[in-house]
Amino acid sequence: MKISIERSVLLKAVSQAQSVVERRNTIPILANVLIEAEGDTAQFRATDLDIEVVDKAAAMVERPGATTVAATTLHEIVRKLPDGALVTLTDDGASGRLTVEAGRSNFSLATLPREDFPVMATSEYSSNFSAPAPVLRRLFDKSKFAISTEETRYYLNGVYMHIADSEGGKALRCVATDGHRLARIDADLPDGAAEMPGVIVPRKTVGELRKLLDDDDMEIAVSVSETKVRFATPNITLTSKVIDGTFPDYTRVIPQGNTRKLEVDASEFAQAVDRVATVSSERSRAVKLQLDEDRLVLSVNSPDSGAAEEELAVAYGDERLEIGFNAKYLLEIASQVDRENAVFMFNSAGDPTLMREGNDTSAVYVVMPMRV
Amino acid sequence: MKISIERSVLLKAVSQAQSVVERRNTIPILANVLIEAEGDTAQFRATDLDIEVVDKAAAMVERPGATTVAATTLHEIVRKLPDGALVTLTDDGASGRLTVEAGRSNFSLATLPREDFPVMATSEYSSNFSAPAPVLRRLFDKSKFAISTEETRYYLNGVYMHIADSEGGKALRCVATDGHRLARIDADLPDGAAEMPGVIVPRKTVGELRKLLDDDDMEIAVSVSETKVRFATPNITLTSKVIDGTFPDYTRVIPQGNTRKLEVDASEFAQAVDRVATVSSERSRAVKLQLDEDRLVLSVNSPDSGAAEEELAVAYGDERLEIGFNAKYLLEIASQVDRENAVFMFNSAGDPTLMREGNDTSAVYVVMPMRV
Repeated sequence: MKISIERSVLLKAVSQAQSVVERRNTIPILANVLIEAEGDTAQFRATDLDIEVVDKAAAMVERPGATTVAATTLHEIVRKLPDGALVTLTDDGASGRLTVEAGRSNFSLATLPREDFPVMATSEYSSNFSAPAPVLRRLFDKSKFAISTEETRYYLNGVYMHIADSEGGKALRCVATDGHRLARIDADLPDGAAEMPGVIVPRKTVGELRKLLDDDDMEIAVSVSETKVRFATPNITLTSKVIDGTFPDYTRVIPQGNTRKLEVDASEFAQAVDRVATVSSERSRAVKLQLDEDRLVLSVNSPDSGAAEEELAVAYGDERLEIGFNAKYLLEIASQVDRENAVFMFNSAGDPTLMREGNDTSAVYVVMPMRV
Repeated sequence: MKISIERSVLLKAVSQAQSVVERRNTIPILANVLIEAEGDTAQFRATDLDIEVVDKAAAMVERPGATTVAATTLHEIVRKLPDGALVTLTDDGASGRLTVEAGRSNFSLATLPREDFPVMATSEYSSNFSAPAPVLRRLFDKSKFAISTEETRYYLNGVYMHIADSEGGKALRCVATDGHRLARIDADLPDGAAEMPGVIVPRKTVGELRKLLDDDDMEIAVSVSETKVRFATPNITLTSKVIDGTFPDYTRVIPQGNTRKLEVDASEFAQAVDRVATVSSERSRAVKLQLDEDRLVLSVNSPDSGAAEEELAVAYGDERLEIGFNAKYLLEIASQVDRENAVFMFNSAGDPTLMREGNDTSAVYVVMPMRV
């Protein structure tokens, strides 16, 4: 194999590949990226056996071929090369080395045989559709904060992407929860997605997927089977196993009968919560909300460090209510609100509270209260 | 005590104070900042018993007085208050609480009696002089990277500031070394500094001092005794114990007879060292320099990951030489060079190498070679 490729193009392809590679590997070849050159394209493939990413890049292929080389080392080298450099990768079969040349720099890297590289089996996908990058970005960005980190509840360690009935008909929906809070985000049903099986997309895959979604004009091809999900742009294909488990029936958690409505400026609210939480002790970060006629008082009382109180002008017309929340959870859901007003729907101090952006029910959050 | 103070002014004063406070304290009051209000000034004082910082800030003092309160909590609160807020601090003697009010935010913080706050004893300083901030900045910025972190060699855990004979007569000199590399930086002798005793300024003090030196037009008042050093601007006074030990005779370490001269573009050199070091194994980050007629070849050979080589056009007219260095040390000294050309003076592959900026001997670095 011998190819020449622009440094910036190579960097982009190798960046995506090396981020899938786990830092610690018991199987040496999983630390490597598989480079395959043919025609006028070089393909860079990396995997952790659960996720596989393939980046295609335009290259001058002088001699087709394939080899594997340490992904982080190659990434570090390319990153440190001067911008605008032309990089030549030469695989010398005899020495088992890959030579990386650019300008007066010359590297010789250990390789492992391409035959040993575990390429993910191709699958039959039962559902194929496409969705604009901003739509997928919203679905995952607004739900991922609620993903559970508890390994024993592995079926909560991802975002549940599925088709659901929403007020406006069928929707593409993402849900995540850790038992303390929940996010439920809806998007219009893309053509061809109606029969998609529900899948739990693992946390790491959500992170890798995010890198494909920055370009507002990009259409993402999505393929889903019972066991795998694939997201693809013209140059990058991300394939991932999905979590083998059943996502709990979240619909029962979303309160339907909450009638006490609070409207508040989301950023003012978040800033005030952040301030009063300063004095809360690390362990129980409880913030108390006292609601009264168009008035919200946030307060924290910590035996160690002191007390804090802040008043906000809000829209609230119901009975007096006192309710406590974990400050971190309140901050996280408040920071999901893009528009000005967050709407909270309360029932009693012991019941889950619902939060949404204005009257928009396509993004709904639930947070469990705590005693204060 | 009751004072009102602008949020930005308060934030600046409290920032400097809280950075001196250690995160973990066995003596509770050392976590606090002492606030003293009188006239039209509030003073914020913090200490770790080795370093004391006093920040003066303009304040509207309604009722003079003093109290102490947790430095990090106060800093966090002030940081989170909106810019432009007017902050009122009220100490209510009866409750033992300090109230912090701004807009509709209200905090009540636990206090400890001002009498318990350990104020550093005032000292007689044998030497007092002033130096422009950029001069002190250069002295400490260019030497601090070489400070040793080995606790057993406590006398190397700081920068040795003293008066020394340089080529141009007496100079104010800063030296730091960890036994592997050494930095020796000279500045013109300030008026009144000639009799200054040599002192070892501890690493943490160097870090705190740095925050006083950002303003190019600031004159810093320096006071030195055998046991303490003080740096002061009109608003901030930083007092520190010096390390109680003898700095070794570093002059013997600085090679005088090195005659093999290499001139190289400092930034090109640093970038090339950084690149070839990519393949070096974590433990022995050895880079080999091969010098020949106007040619420098940098190379690394790592049994695990591979090899790297890069050639640089340089000015070198002496015999062939091969010498190895720790890549980290080479990078650090190369990054001290502000001007284009770094001058290395070699002797043999086993001898310490000298580095300076062009022909300027006011900043000299020594680095020990390693076998490659």
